[in-house]
Amino acid sequence: MLTRIDHIGIACHDLDATVAFYRATYGFEVFHTEVNEEQGVREAMLKINDTSDGGSTYLQLLEPVREDSTVAKWLAKNGEGVHHIAFGTGDVDADAADIRERGVRVLYDEPRRGSMGSRITFLHPKDCHGVLTELVTSAAVESPEH
Amino acid sequence: MLTRIDHIGIACHDLDATVAFYRATYGFEVFHTEVNEEQGVREAMLKINDTSDGGSTYLQLLEPVREDSTVAKWLAKNGEGVHHIAFGTGDVDADAADIRERGVRVLYDEPRRGSMGSRITFLHPKDCHGVLTELVTSAAVESPEH
Repeated sequence: MLTRIDHIGIACHDLDATVAFYRATYGFEVFHTEVNEEQGVREAMLKINDTSDGGSTYLQLLEPVREDSTVAKWLAKNGEGVHHIAFGTGDVDADAADIRERGVRVLYDEPRRGSMGSRITFLHPKDCHGVLTELVTSAAVESPEH
Repeated sequence: MLTRIDHIGIACHDLDATVAFYRATYGFEVFHTEVNEEQGVREAMLKINDTSDGGSTYLQLLEPVREDSTVAKWLAKNGEGVHHIAFGTGDVDADAADIRERGVRVLYDEPRRGSMGSRITFLHPKDCHGVLTELVTSAAVESPEH
């Protein structure tokens, strides 16, 4: 069951400049940074608020680290902007299976590693009215509801 | 001060079909619908979670109601997808003034009417690394922090 907006993924050409923009304009601070080699991105997570399911909502700023990454290709086509949205769930495996049953293409056979040790999968944007949609189960499940 | 992700605005060609997709795929229900004549859209708000500042985060599904609306033009260029993101604040006037001081173009001289009686303004996407960014103050300010 999807219980929160976990993050909004924003593709950018220059992560440091984009982090600086969000800090200078809104006062948002970096909560976490990492390189995800599998996804081919360097990323910064800015925590915006906590959520009623015991999780949080972040902006995820994404800079490609290699030209053949999906984010690099997306940027070349679209320019900087919102790349995907992500819903948080206590059980990404169960939700991905349910959603696949409903006829939506799930892009991974098994969830992969996402930010901060989370487990993630993606839904095909053409099956989601144009929105690349991610499902996330956090590494630290904090809520008793989960 | 921006204290939450208030909503993600998603442009679609057919609001009823898109609402049906979100209900059938994820179980999300419509919290509110309205027509905003000034913005030229028919919209549905799907509440996803409550937030730590006393507000909530929604998906806002937007269908243009006239061909000269900004959302209609955006859809013609981009197809369906994420149109904008919105941050919630207790004082959209003060935040818009601060952000304008920092050199970001604010699109309205004064905030206008948004969903559910909120007051909103937008920041120019070219000044925000490609992200059309909205600031929202809800009509019902529920949190003692505000």
